[in-house]
Amino acid sequence: MTRDIEARKQQASAWFAELQNRLIAALEAIEGEGGDCYGAWPAGAFEIKDWRRGDGSADLGGGRMAMLRGRIFEKAGVHTSTVYGELSAEFRKQVPGAEEDPRFWASGISLIVHPRNPHVPAAHMNTRMIVTTKCWFGGGGDLNPMMDRYRLAAHEDTLDFHTAMRSACDRHDPAYYPRYKKWCDEYFYLPHRSEHRGVGGIFYDRHDSGSWDADFAFTRDVGRAFLDVYPRLVRRRVSAPWTEEDRAEQLFRRGRYAEYNLLYDRGTTFGLKTGGNIESILSSLPPLATWP
Amino acid sequence: MTRDIEARKQQASAWFAELQNRLIAALEAIEGEGGDCYGAWPAGAFEIKDWRRGDGSADLGGGRMAMLRGRIFEKAGVHTSTVYGELSAEFRKQVPGAEEDPRFWASGISLIVHPRNPHVPAAHMNTRMIVTTKCWFGGGGDLNPMMDRYRLAAHEDTLDFHTAMRSACDRHDPAYYPRYKKWCDEYFYLPHRSEHRGVGGIFYDRHDSGSWDADFAFTRDVGRAFLDVYPRLVRRRVSAPWTEEDRAEQLFRRGRYAEYNLLYDRGTTFGLKTGGNIESILSSLPPLATWP
Repeated sequence: MTRDIEARKQQASAWFAELQNRLIAALEAIEGEGGDCYGAWPAGAFEIKDWRRGDGSADLGGGRMAMLRGRIFEKAGVHTSTVYGELSAEFRKQVPGAEEDPRFWASGISLIVHPRNPHVPAAHMNTRMIVTTKCWFGGGGDLNPMMDRYRLAAHEDTLDFHTAMRSACDRHDPAYYPRYKKWCDEYFYLPHRSEHRGVGGIFYDRHDSGSWDADFAFTRDVGRAFLDVYPRLVRRRVSAPWTEEDRAEQLFRRGRYAEYNLLYDRGTTFGLKTGGNIESILSSLPPLATWP
Repeated sequence: MTRDIEARKQQASAWFAELQNRLIAALEAIEGEGGDCYGAWPAGAFEIKDWRRGDGSADLGGGRMAMLRGRIFEKAGVHTSTVYGELSAEFRKQVPGAEEDPRFWASGISLIVHPRNPHVPAAHMNTRMIVTTKCWFGGGGDLNPMMDRYRLAAHEDTLDFHTAMRSACDRHDPAYYPRYKKWCDEYFYLPHRSEHRGVGGIFYDRHDSGSWDADFAFTRDVGRAFLDVYPRLVRRRVSAPWTEEDRAEQLFRRGRYAEYNLLYDRGTTFGLKTGGNIESILSSLPPLATWP
């Protein structure tokens, strides 16, 4: 069992690293293709930065940040991390399986993309494996179109994104998609604005079906589904010309995105309180935003 | 005593309304003067909007928002509100004097100014009177220069601003300024960035010296000091030409300002949780900000 869990940690973190490489390659390919709206603007490339957690006196894990500031992708981050150690007394009460034993291990990947073209939706994807005395997966993917005319359940981009997330779910359990779609709608919601952050997708946490192999396969399928669908949506819109009004609407919507992440996102507030890597946690914030 | 407190509420809210009018006049005068950097851009004017709290089924008070989106002042808000009712069970534990009796009354003014010119410091000022079974004042003023070369304790703008705040304090008690300056430094601090929001000023809460008359006079002096010093600082810098790099630095600093207000500011988070006026609470957010 101990040997099992170590092998599983290894497999999961190797998958997150592989998915990071694939996502980087997919986004850089689009960045390289350019489009009608970008003129002589040169293509950007991801910058990779490895970081270690803590002050160096103990091995607490670390991560790999990859940031692209380009022409198609005004700001995109694809980060992995594998961290471990002991949870503080405060957090032991909040984390399943940690009250008996403070040791934890967590590995995951998170992606956030803010395209320059207001027609191209922003997107967020994250999957992770957590180990305390229990072991589970969490994650999801959600689409964040920037203009109201795209922020519709019946829009083709929304439909395609949901179809991809549903397919990843349905291969494992037909109950997953309805449950995790609903969770996503509830989670990415700004109560003070009475509005959703985007058009949803799926969100799940504490996912443990009883079969680690099945749950890991589900996690991989969520990542692969995102890798398949999001580049298609970007290519569909990348050459659509935009107006100043479109850009203004995008910057306004990005303000709401920043509000959500700073006021409500548990990943952000948890990360800031537990001494996570500030640079990667806050890399989700939009490159330019307005509160007019 | 009951008659006393009603008269005091009346006096305080009348003062906040008067100060709002004076601040509006002072900022509109500067906006009208223009400056060397604003070309043919027309002067802006404050838009006034009155609002009532709640759904109209009971009188819970309300407020007056005043927003200027202009040439000198890219975004400025000067708001007053006088609200009352009963605190929820959750908040009764957190508010002094409310455990015995949930009724509260609160009146105050808050100002936030985001100038367009990166040389001109942003500023925040707020004073308020709160009544439960206890009665106290809170507030302060702090200066938020946008460029690092101004973010210095020894810079003349910082010195002038602190001199003004110190004078308002010293007229009442020489112990106030050191205590409330320190509180300001501690309050307007971003722990995840290990940096202060601005160059400080004063911050105080639960201020009750035992003499309401003295405390109300102190509150008025803080408002008058701000009204005197901030327009002087604006006029000193308003015609200083700026570069694209200066503007980029300003927008970067505004990103940090937004982080502070959404992650830490108790006024903001308290207001959002207690069904305050979202529009006026979040009007503090900068008109344009970057997270590059």
